[in-house]
Amino acid sequence: MKREFVYEGKAKRVYKTDDEKVYLIEYKDDATAFNGEKKETIENKGVINNKISAMLFELLENAGIETHFVKLIDERRMLVKAVEIIPIEVIVRNVAAGSLAKRLGFEEGTQLETTVLEFCYKNDELGDPLINDYHIQALKLAGKEEVEVIKQKALKINEILVDFFGKIGLKLIDFKLEFGRYDGRIILADEISPDTCRLWDKETNQKMDKDRFRRDLGKVEDAYKEVLRRVEEVL
Amino acid sequence: MKREFVYEGKAKRVYKTDDEKVYLIEYKDDATAFNGEKKETIENKGVINNKISAMLFELLENAGIETHFVKLIDERRMLVKAVEIIPIEVIVRNVAAGSLAKRLGFEEGTQLETTVLEFCYKNDELGDPLINDYHIQALKLAGKEEVEVIKQKALKINEILVDFFGKIGLKLIDFKLEFGRYDGRIILADEISPDTCRLWDKETNQKMDKDRFRRDLGKVEDAYKEVLRRVEEVL
Ligand SMILES: Nc1ncnc2c1ncn2[C@@H]1O[C@H](COP(=O)(O)OP(=O)(O)O)[C@@H](O)[C@H]1O
Ligand SMILES: Nc1ncnc2c1ncn2[C@@H]1O[C@H](COP(=O)(O)OP(=O)(O)O)[C@@H](O)[C@H]1O
Ligand SMILES: [Mg+2]
Ligand SMILES: [Mg+2]
Repeated sequence: MKREFVYEGKAKRVYKTDDEKVYLIEYKDDATAFNGEKKETIENKGVINNKISAMLFELLENAGIETHFVKLIDERRMLVKAVEIIPIEVIVRNVAAGSLAKRLGFEEGTQLETTVLEFCYKNDELGDPLINDYHIQALKLAGKEEVEVIKQKALKINEILVDFFGKIGLKLIDFKLEFGRYDGRIILADEISPDTCRLWDKETNQKMDKDRFRRDLGKVEDAYKEVLRRVEEVL
Repeated sequence: MKREFVYEGKAKRVYKTDDEKVYLIEYKDDATAFNGEKKETIENKGVINNKISAMLFELLENAGIETHFVKLIDERRMLVKAVEIIPIEVIVRNVAAGSLAKRLGFEEGTQLETTVLEFCYKNDELGDPLINDYHIQALKLAGKEEVEVIKQKALKINEILVDFFGKIGLKLIDFKLEFGRYDGRIILADEISPDTCRLWDKETNQKMDKDRFRRDLGKVEDAYKEVLRRVEEVL
């Protein structure tokens, strides 16, 4: 297997493989927040997120959502379908938290009247600004039909994940997805982990996600481990 | 006629009249920018914007768009239908400028691939944040059908205004609208003026709008007067 870099992101490294349609993704322990301003390492994060993502991708595949996941290679690495990433961060929100709460004046923890979808332009230089359907056209990030497909898939994924996390005592507050083009289809890519989801314990409302790092709440690794433990218990 | 206040905004005062379905709007010379941080007076602005708005509302009525405009009272004041304002700033953009250019990395002056509609939550405390259709539902600002009506009307108004300003040598770069509920219908309210439109001279690209004030370009009153002169020439 060749080890040619495709790119190194903030949380993962992407490599080519002998098969041009397959990439190898390596999950790092690096954690960043506030557009790279805050940088640290979370012990074992890469291993934990690789495992959690793999299991959640399998869960989604079984529910009829195509994902980029091919198979686990080892503790930190998985093979995935090499997609053309659509540079849109798709955010799904069930409960107000983070930037939504702040920007729109919701108290964090408020159940939203309706599931809220948000698109952000995946562009570190611009700070991943919020965009709407018209901006997506003006920036030529995706076609109108692609946007509709993405919306449908994101809402379906939300239903599946809310239900799943509910079963392991976690509230899915919000999460971020990335989609890519593969063989003319739009499939789910990137990762699903405590780095990209807000997960609150159902009983205690304790944060079990990257907000522990962003807000210096401590016990970051413990929280990630506990999420992994609960996911492994049922999947 | 009673002179009971309904509210005083940054650019206009709204009064009740003997007819509860009619308000009197008085246009002030006050100019504010950057959410109230910059404050000055632009000589005669109130008079100019009252006149321009009146003529543009009539133009739109003649093209089949219902507006709040009833009639001019004097140089600074008009009677309007008293609406329940929908707290959404509807922004229509033909060319990248201002916050769009900055947020999304367009060079100011770039013709947009497609007409861009934006909604902002009209809320001074929050700084009028950009919102999408889902936020509008979550904040209960307007119903889904209302949002569709607003989009249709905004795009129709854009067509009419681009065409009209083109005839008087002005490029309509972008503008902001406010709509309100009246007798179960959604009608156009507020104002249409160099305070709420970006207008560039077709030949020289000179800015003929509030950006002269925001960016300290000088000759603000002259620019507003010139827009009025051109509008009066044809309407
Ligand atoms: N299946 C895939 N094919 C190609 N690129 C992918 C795939 N899955 C994820 N990526 C991309 O891999 C890069 C590395 O991930 P990450 O470290 O999270 O980056 P970032 O710093 O952009 O968040 C990201 O640009 C992501 O979009
Ligand atoms: N026909 C109308 N009926 C009721 N309110 C209106 C009408 N037209 C405009 N308004 C409202 O009048 C207020 C005063 O206008 P303005 O000075 O521009 O206020 P602002 O500081 O909010 O921009 C605004 O809140 C605007 O929404
Ligand atoms: Mg990432
Ligand atoms: Mg106003």
